[in-house]
Amino acid sequence: MSREHVKEIADRDTDFSQWYLDVVLKAELADYAPVRGAMVFRPYGYRIWELLQQELDRRFKDTGVVNAYFPLFIPEEIFKKEAEHIEGFAPEVPWVTHVGNEKLSERYVVRPTSETMFGTMYAKWIQSYRDLPLLINQWCSVVRWEKRTLPFMRTTEFLWQEGHTAHRDEEDARSRTMQMLYVYRDFLAEVLAIPTIAGRKTENEKFAGAVDTYSVEALMGDGRALQSATSHYLGDGFAKVLNIQFLDRDGRHKYVHTTSWGLSWRVIGAIIMVHGDRHGLVLPPAVAPYQVVVVPIAPSDDAREQVLQAVNKLVDKMPSAVRVFVDDRWEYTPGWKFNEWELRGVPIRLEVGPRDLERGEAVLVRRDTGEKTPVQWDKVPTVINEQLTAIQNDMLERARRSLIERTRTVADFEEFEQVIRNKRGFIVANWCGDGSCELQIKEKTGATIRCIPLEGSEATGPCIHCGRDGVSRVYFARAY
Amino acid sequence: MSREHVKEIADRDTDFSQWYLDVVLKAELADYAPVRGAMVFRPYGYRIWELLQQELDRRFKDTGVVNAYFPLFIPEEIFKKEAEHIEGFAPEVPWVTHVGNEKLSERYVVRPTSETMFGTMYAKWIQSYRDLPLLINQWCSVVRWEKRTLPFMRTTEFLWQEGHTAHRDEEDARSRTMQMLYVYRDFLAEVLAIPTIAGRKTENEKFAGAVDTYSVEALMGDGRALQSATSHYLGDGFAKVLNIQFLDRDGRHKYVHTTSWGLSWRVIGAIIMVHGDRHGLVLPPAVAPYQVVVVPIAPSDDAREQVLQAVNKLVDKMPSAVRVFVDDRWEYTPGWKFNEWELRGVPIRLEVGPRDLERGEAVLVRRDTGEKTPVQWDKVPTVINEQLTAIQNDMLERARRSLIERTRTVADFEEFEQVIRNKRGFIVANWCGDGSCELQIKEKTGATIRCIPLEGSEATGPCIHCGRDGVSRVYFARAY
Repeated sequence: MSREHVKEIADRDTDFSQWYLDVVLKAELADYAPVRGAMVFRPYGYRIWELLQQELDRRFKDTGVVNAYFPLFIPEEIFKKEAEHIEGFAPEVPWVTHVGNEKLSERYVVRPTSETMFGTMYAKWIQSYRDLPLLINQWCSVVRWEKRTLPFMRTTEFLWQEGHTAHRDEEDARSRTMQMLYVYRDFLAEVLAIPTIAGRKTENEKFAGAVDTYSVEALMGDGRALQSATSHYLGDGFAKVLNIQFLDRDGRHKYVHTTSWGLSWRVIGAIIMVHGDRHGLVLPPAVAPYQVVVVPIAPSDDAREQVLQAVNKLVDKMPSAVRVFVDDRWEYTPGWKFNEWELRGVPIRLEVGPRDLERGEAVLVRRDTGEKTPVQWDKVPTVINEQLTAIQNDMLERARRSLIERTRTVADFEEFEQVIRNKRGFIVANWCGDGSCELQIKEKTGATIRCIPLEGSEATGPCIHCGRDGVSRVYFARAY
Repeated sequence: MSREHVKEIADRDTDFSQWYLDVVLKAELADYAPVRGAMVFRPYGYRIWELLQQELDRRFKDTGVVNAYFPLFIPEEIFKKEAEHIEGFAPEVPWVTHVGNEKLSERYVVRPTSETMFGTMYAKWIQSYRDLPLLINQWCSVVRWEKRTLPFMRTTEFLWQEGHTAHRDEEDARSRTMQMLYVYRDFLAEVLAIPTIAGRKTENEKFAGAVDTYSVEALMGDGRALQSATSHYLGDGFAKVLNIQFLDRDGRHKYVHTTSWGLSWRVIGAIIMVHGDRHGLVLPPAVAPYQVVVVPIAPSDDAREQVLQAVNKLVDKMPSAVRVFVDDRWEYTPGWKFNEWELRGVPIRLEVGPRDLERGEAVLVRRDTGEKTPVQWDKVPTVINEQLTAIQNDMLERARRSLIERTRTVADFEEFEQVIRNKRGFIVANWCGDGSCELQIKEKTGATIRCIPLEGSEATGPCIHCGRDGVSRVYFARAY
């Protein structure tokens, strides 16, 4: 007998928002915290973060990046040095004004991002062209006091990584900006099975203080876009206000060119919203805390021991790199467990009951397709490996097809409005290049230009909104 | 020709404090930050942290602990729930009072530690005895506004891990408290090559809100002690004020018993102060960013290519788990490089010059002993592995001997004062058990009771200070 009712989640098709919150909370990925707009990242969710962090960190290091840790507090004077930057962040930064009962002589900002802090240190560390490029990343939490919040997607505090690099010239800095964008794009596709559109942000949408912002944009299950990672070319703006100079080969002092790039725990939200289905979470094997859950089934106490023995033998033969959990909690029914591990998105379920025992088989169930296959005992290790690879690939492939199906080129603004109203995903349309036209579209439809794509951005006709000559072909969508 | 002068560091024997700061800064482990008492953890130092973090985290997980992330800000109301706790931390916590230009309706503390935040969530998550024990750890930064600061040892912000567990009863909680103390002791010995004395803190020295605090105490190169990690049994005090109850098997609601335990970046300071010598840092191989640095030596441009080719072949044959750096920066002299990598504590240096080439040898130099040994090419991989193991073991053995040599049992208070004055390390002495007597000793000598050791704490005579009956035999020292 089940000791609890099966956990229910809202219907994904009719109430996507509630479905999302139900998955976050009931799969125990996160919980609300007693701090406005903040959340607690629970162990099951955090384990996904650890796995993706290891993989992304390895990819950073392969490009020569090293990690470090910079202070949480930024003195007001330093934070305010870059004018656009402060303008962009000032309304949402928390201020530390007191320690104990004493008022501080200088206020500190709790970092919303660390361009100014890294830059201040870079000014001290960089003397010569030999010190360049300087490629440092940090994994940390940052705070931005957002008004509307949603677990993972927009929280007042969030975990992320922020990379900050300094270079001899624009060319080298721009090349790093693109390199990191591609690292994100490949990571999202290969590890999280999330396809994205890579492109440049418009002036209205770019990072406060950047010359150019690039992003990778994913498409969620409800047709809204998600900026999944960004990479900024900052020019020499931060270098000038923070005085980051180096002595070049030619004996002249020059300002460095800097970049910054980041990815946050929003990608956990993206995993939920891209892959999840009506039963809950569907995890790509690469970041699944458990890749395989084994559910032993036994109608009687006698059968339990027999089944468990067989299961343990089976697990011993599993490849050591595979993350397996044997759910031998007899106080729960098999049905409850099936439901629970489906909700939690475990890629493969192995059922082993007395009849399977007799036949020398186990039943393998794929979370992504629901497909059930009997597998002979001795073939389980091989089949598990094959199926994990297949699931990872199939999930990406399905997400790719879905992104393509939900990307449409529209003929006129009426159709544009209709597509947005019906939450149909990305719209590819021509745009005049005018920021005020872009803002009008946003006011009318809620849709923003997600990016000017790296490929195929040549205009093919007049602006979808104002009818003036098109300058670029861009991606529009409503976004998180 | 060297492009820079060899970096000089202060004399360790005559000016230990300056020597320590020189090592921290010139080995590029950390740098001062533009925030009072805070530091920047630079890539070379941070890499040591990553390596030790991986190893400690694995050991935690082996005991069933999982990781999570809890909010940085703690609402005033929650923070103030445990009276002793708030009394201990209140003077040194920073307060967030404003966001942007708006005053917050409730102030937040920037966490100095997270017992109250974990406990608040545990009250929500724990319902039944089946939910216990709950074993969660987080790696994060915390803030304590200390007056006197010193890189790694005492900083206003620091990186650490804090584990928080909840249990059915006192026995289970106490057993976890001790288990984690042993995890720290073994980790410090086996990974950082730092021997420690494990014991219980006196009432005066224990954690604010704890029933019992245990610590592992190491001995630094200048004879001062360092509390290297702590493990607290918190009783049901936090459970009562935060209302963390569970339904037990017997159908009754009971309060859980909790523990907490932590280790911070101070251990990097401990590595410097325990193992360092007059040439700088000496790193245990287990946490050395580079375990082997290869210095190719070539008197002419022609020789360079030949030597580099040979070096690359050699490195290709090195075991893949060994972290190797080939320093082929020809703008630096071999002498400069030797000095630089000694300062940075790399365990093994391999020198390869034209004459070594002819002989089919490389010269292996151990950082810890300075020993030089010619090694035949084909034996290098084996010898490297052997030597890394030998260095790790020898460093622990030397540190053990040194701790024993600098631990003395004293006969009277005059000798006690003299030993402390001469910075001679640990004093083992009898103590009456009276906290006011302990405070008098501290006032007179600066020495505190580091711990009541887990073994051999039976009193062997009268109190070293007041002469009353001894209750325990304890460890005294001046401490960081």
